[in-house]
Amino acid sequence: MNISMVRYLLGWMLGIESAFLLLPMAVALARGEREGLAFLFTAALCLLCGVLMARKKPVNNRFYAREGFVTVALCWIVLALTGALPFVLSGEIPSYVDALFETISGFTTTGATILSNVEALSHASLLWRSLTHWVGGMGVLVFMLAVLPLAGGHSMYLMRAESPGPSVSKLSPHLRTTAMILYGIYFGLTVLETVLLLLGGMPLFDAVNAAMATAGTGGFGIWNDSMAHYNSYYLQGVISVFMILFGVNFSLYFLILTRRWKQALKSEELRLYLGVIAAATVVIGLNVWHRFGSLFESLHHALFQVSSIITTTGFATADFDQWPALSKCILVLLMFIGACAGSTGGGIKCSRIMLMFKSVRKEMQFLIHPRSVRVNQLDGHRVQHEVVRSVNVFLIAYMLIFILSVLLLSIESPDLVTNFTAVAATLNNVGPGLELVGPTCNFGFFSPFSKAVLMFDMLAGRLELFPMLLLFSPATWRRNR
Amino acid sequence: MNISMVRYLLGWMLGIESAFLLLPMAVALARGEREGLAFLFTAALCLLCGVLMARKKPVNNRFYAREGFVTVALCWIVLALTGALPFVLSGEIPSYVDALFETISGFTTTGATILSNVEALSHASLLWRSLTHWVGGMGVLVFMLAVLPLAGGHSMYLMRAESPGPSVSKLSPHLRTTAMILYGIYFGLTVLETVLLLLGGMPLFDAVNAAMATAGTGGFGIWNDSMAHYNSYYLQGVISVFMILFGVNFSLYFLILTRRWKQALKSEELRLYLGVIAAATVVIGLNVWHRFGSLFESLHHALFQVSSIITTTGFATADFDQWPALSKCILVLLMFIGACAGSTGGGIKCSRIMLMFKSVRKEMQFLIHPRSVRVNQLDGHRVQHEVVRSVNVFLIAYMLIFILSVLLLSIESPDLVTNFTAVAATLNNVGPGLELVGPTCNFGFFSPFSKAVLMFDMLAGRLELFPMLLLFSPATWRRNR
Repeated sequence: MNISMVRYLLGWMLGIESAFLLLPMAVALARGEREGLAFLFTAALCLLCGVLMARKKPVNNRFYAREGFVTVALCWIVLALTGALPFVLSGEIPSYVDALFETISGFTTTGATILSNVEALSHASLLWRSLTHWVGGMGVLVFMLAVLPLAGGHSMYLMRAESPGPSVSKLSPHLRTTAMILYGIYFGLTVLETVLLLLGGMPLFDAVNAAMATAGTGGFGIWNDSMAHYNSYYLQGVISVFMILFGVNFSLYFLILTRRWKQALKSEELRLYLGVIAAATVVIGLNVWHRFGSLFESLHHALFQVSSIITTTGFATADFDQWPALSKCILVLLMFIGACAGSTGGGIKCSRIMLMFKSVRKEMQFLIHPRSVRVNQLDGHRVQHEVVRSVNVFLIAYMLIFILSVLLLSIESPDLVTNFTAVAATLNNVGPGLELVGPTCNFGFFSPFSKAVLMFDMLAGRLELFPMLLLFSPATWRRNR
Repeated sequence: MNISMVRYLLGWMLGIESAFLLLPMAVALARGEREGLAFLFTAALCLLCGVLMARKKPVNNRFYAREGFVTVALCWIVLALTGALPFVLSGEIPSYVDALFETISGFTTTGATILSNVEALSHASLLWRSLTHWVGGMGVLVFMLAVLPLAGGHSMYLMRAESPGPSVSKLSPHLRTTAMILYGIYFGLTVLETVLLLLGGMPLFDAVNAAMATAGTGGFGIWNDSMAHYNSYYLQGVISVFMILFGVNFSLYFLILTRRWKQALKSEELRLYLGVIAAATVVIGLNVWHRFGSLFESLHHALFQVSSIITTTGFATADFDQWPALSKCILVLLMFIGACAGSTGGGIKCSRIMLMFKSVRKEMQFLIHPRSVRVNQLDGHRVQHEVVRSVNVFLIAYMLIFILSVLLLSIESPDLVTNFTAVAATLNNVGPGLELVGPTCNFGFFSPFSKAVLMFDMLAGRLELFPMLLLFSPATWRRNR
């Protein structure tokens, strides 16, 4: 393990975090909020540590997959540990465990909160929560790769360990260009959403926060009643559409920008994703029709909730915990399906689901015709055996973590639906679950032990399990033989 | 598809069923119950159909995997369709759907009942219920292979399609001998349990029924309060031990009978199975201690429930639906783990769980050292790639069926825990679940539609998914190219 290289990269990451912390500080300054001091102090601390750690460039350049996973896992943990400080220092979230939960929930774009009254927070803290979503959505290390001229072969390992989905698509032969294109599209879409929300009459501060939380498919709102606060079909509709857009594989936008429309629209994952959204919206819309005035309103809320849950954003315009069992069941299922690979959304991801279906179909054909040779294809290309295997193993590891987490929560929390959906909502980075963690409730009542389990789940979910698992595996830290 | 061969085998199967039906008829005769007529009529009908179907030996001997799967699936469906008749004809279960549910639950060794008062049944019907467990446990086609001199290459395909677990162990180069050995051990253990129960003072009729339901890891009892009826540590203890014994891979008994003790005890699956039972018993025993007088009693009931659930038998000595969340969670988890491959128990099976863990460990090692080549091993032997793949695909298909079933149940049934555990209890062939399908409740309240879903799940679970899936796949019925 090349510790000095890990330290060096961690240092740079802290520097970047310190820059991001200046944004809420500026807002505090403009609004005359004294909470700004907490952000200033944290920014200074991060910068100091960052400079100390990144001062000396390591001599040893060895950097392989193992170092990549460890760096990513540690970066995210340190990011959260430091990012939680302003909440505690400002006194807005006195308990450090709670502040850490909130920050991890932010960076992992989960959106599960421990606060019962978010409206009591300062503007600086509200912006910081949204900003953690935005940074966490595309990834802090991808950001680092985009803005810093870091030479060396480590970039690919970092990118691979931080990006969601079974495989990383290279948009450009240069990894730095890829990272820049991704953040460019991301920034552009965020600005576009902000403008569209402003046009609908949303105040600027609200629009920026909503756009950043949508972009990262996060889900923190700045009002206690989430998006039900904006009682406007237009505003809620814009957010619905943008949630769906941010759940699409970003490489498709690159294809569209380079005028390869046909190739983009042929994506099987996109079709599955949109098909599931459409089907779920119709079924839920009909199922909850009796609760709303008209079919239009019912479909409007169904679409919002479906988009919010499948992209693992977690905004709500209605308390879906009160909906009928079929609707609740479908929503819980959507939590697991998740968005497309290469998007900012969480969950198992549509492409993995698709490969799973294809594996079953192939096995059935094989059972009927044992001598036939068939190969799984995706978008007309042969799916490599490695990818199929890694999808299968991902699924197994996912289930094991899921089951263990539910068991650990059950030690203290008595309600099975709460425990099940709390893990589903955190491991898939969704946010709200059902019952005690439903859209009108919060995660504050869990014990520190249960919160620790859920924090692990959020990080494991965002980093797609293996960086977190490897961090705790003795083999990772063993000396090379 | 060689339809005539399928018809021929179905005919033989009906003949065997007709022989089994004579047993409850004999009991009815001895007890002077008029329900015996229903059994006589059904036996005659089965014999008639059987003779008509098996009269002409097919000329075409082609019989491959496809035919094997279809034969097994159809045999089990016809077995249930005809086996349900006595309940309806005798008027004890007037609704045919309910009678079919009860019979499928019997043959698949699930033990989920639609009856609220089993004590009202005639002795003939009680024995028939237990007998379906016993026949279904080891498999009706395996029985057929053991008793009939059926020549031809189809035997292997039938055996493979009906036997539980990722691979079939050949105990002898001759398949017929293998089937005879398996049924011999099965019969021997059943008799041994009956004798031990008789020694504890259980009446003969009770002992035979309890032993047959234990042997098939079924779970139908002849008393409304299941095994809590026998308020004796000895009797409940004997049943605990035999449930565990019937959940062990039967090839291990063959190893022991041929004095290969060491090899048998080295089995990794056995160690996992016993380890899980021990761990779950201790944790649950401590968790429910406050509900019982002493730690001994608490551990006694914990062991009984753990053995009953992990072997997917489904007997109960306590209403575990009232136990704390941790205990309930562990029990639900045990439903999924299930017993050993090659036993009469259901669930995912310990060997598959073990291979899953090994796959994750291997992937983690691969991520750290991408150039290392590692091979999964089980009991010191290399696990073939085919087996690993089929385990993965099994898991995926399993999850897809599970999710779809829960969704379908949610259309009508409002409680998520009920729906989830009803599917878990039927797909894993356990029997009781939680809430509305808890150990003191029954499945009678479901609509015919929901019952149909659960019946499919029971059959799919017992036959390990693919025979049932292939039966409904158009590719199975397509002409050979």
